[in-house]
Amino acid sequence: MQITIIGLGGIGASIGLAYQHAELGDRVRGYDINPDAMQGALEMGAIDEPLDSADKCADAEMIVVATPPRAVPELFQRLAPRLRPETVMTDVVSVKQPVLEWARAYLPYPNRFVGGHPIAGTERHGYQAARADLFQGASWVITPTPDTDANAIARVEHLIRAIRAIPVRMDAAQHDREFALLSFVPHCLAFSLVALHAEHPTQLQGGGSWQSATRVAQSDPELWTELLTLNREATADWLDALIERLRAIQQALQKGDSEQLRRLLQS
Amino acid sequence: MQITIIGLGGIGASIGLAYQHAELGDRVRGYDINPDAMQGALEMGAIDEPLDSADKCADAEMIVVATPPRAVPELFQRLAPRLRPETVMTDVVSVKQPVLEWARAYLPYPNRFVGGHPIAGTERHGYQAARADLFQGASWVITPTPDTDANAIARVEHLIRAIRAIPVRMDAAQHDREFALLSFVPHCLAFSLVALHAEHPTQLQGGGSWQSATRVAQSDPELWTELLTLNREATADWLDALIERLRAIQQALQKGDSEQLRRLLQS
Repeated sequence: MQITIIGLGGIGASIGLAYQHAELGDRVRGYDINPDAMQGALEMGAIDEPLDSADKCADAEMIVVATPPRAVPELFQRLAPRLRPETVMTDVVSVKQPVLEWARAYLPYPNRFVGGHPIAGTERHGYQAARADLFQGASWVITPTPDTDANAIARVEHLIRAIRAIPVRMDAAQHDREFALLSFVPHCLAFSLVALHAEHPTQLQGGGSWQSATRVAQSDPELWTELLTLNREATADWLDALIERLRAIQQALQKGDSEQLRRLLQS
Repeated sequence: MQITIIGLGGIGASIGLAYQHAELGDRVRGYDINPDAMQGALEMGAIDEPLDSADKCADAEMIVVATPPRAVPELFQRLAPRLRPETVMTDVVSVKQPVLEWARAYLPYPNRFVGGHPIAGTERHGYQAARADLFQGASWVITPTPDTDANAIARVEHLIRAIRAIPVRMDAAQHDREFALLSFVPHCLAFSLVALHAEHPTQLQGGGSWQSATRVAQSDPELWTELLTLNREATADWLDALIERLRAIQQALQKGDSEQLRRLLQS
């Protein structure tokens, strides 16, 4: 199956590398708005063939959209007039409901679009961060709807398995709600801790607990502004619940209530 | 220098292992209230000689107190009548001001006590978690006061260097304030996230950001109840400041204010 990857950052280029690594003998074509990323992906062997415009990506058996989320609606609109009915499309955005809405709004064959999300990120970004084994053993959520074409689902699952990940079917709303807790809230915490520390620098260097708590604050704040905005209700709800717990700990500390504190630390 | 380690958990047994590893030819004696821990530390080579009561630990050139914090005041009182003026004492509790207060209150020669804190922990505990290289290259804060004996400081720094750590002198109050942000707050966050998740289990497994954010929630909640209570003012203050930041993010999300969100994620 010939695939075309649009967006050759850490995830897009890793998909290319992993697919090449699977040695299926299929061509991988790729496009990135940034010529350096496209050249880099070509040189590292993530793609066989660079395409010189988004328009040219429409002619493919499968299109994998791996751009930042903000680029997706316009990209769908550009591809729309050129898509063939049999082309399967998928994406890797870590919020699924908005992408499904864009697919319904802009794509001529939304039932051939299968929303996807590999649970394998890294705080590093750009094609330089790509790894052929990034998806090995990782869950890769897909969020088909009742209207999604069964053959399109099968082909996306085939791609996912080919690059050694494990396809997991899930309702898009449930995915977005769960992932807000599992990833979006930890990112908010990491960014907040680093900002707090920048305001109050310490002489002491943080040990392992600080490194772990702040690792993902090295992620791109621009991308995370987009992602959080796309999943803002669920993230705001979880933050609310977390703030309530932290406030309870803070109050137990102020009162010196060790019993209450002990209860709050246990789960 | 013959050392006696009281408390043979992950840190105490690691000090023994690291000191043996340095091959200074000095005997390491050890005591733990739990006979299994003492036997385990002996078998793994962390100590040469087990002592059968806390009282017998008083006769030493250097005593390293590596018990949980709650055991320290009573231990100081038990050792007090038997201590020799030349014995140097140190500890490894990650809150320094209370330990200094206990030393002043209970020890006959508080100027021979040097508060210490190796910035090298692990969420694993017990002597089984001990590692000879745990302190290699790690900072090891000591908090001498203006009254502390210079010779006692020099001997503690010698021990720290012998086990490959880097001694860092620091004011106890500053240490406690900074470490509350760098470690106590991350522990509160990890415990809270895990508790929130236990209340709202997900079908999806967390990826790297969740693993990092919750790793230290595997720490002993009993120990952390003690530590947080001992450093409650500083921790409560930092939690307050963090809650304010999280609330701002939560409100920016509710309003859909991406500009404000972007500012909050940057530092």
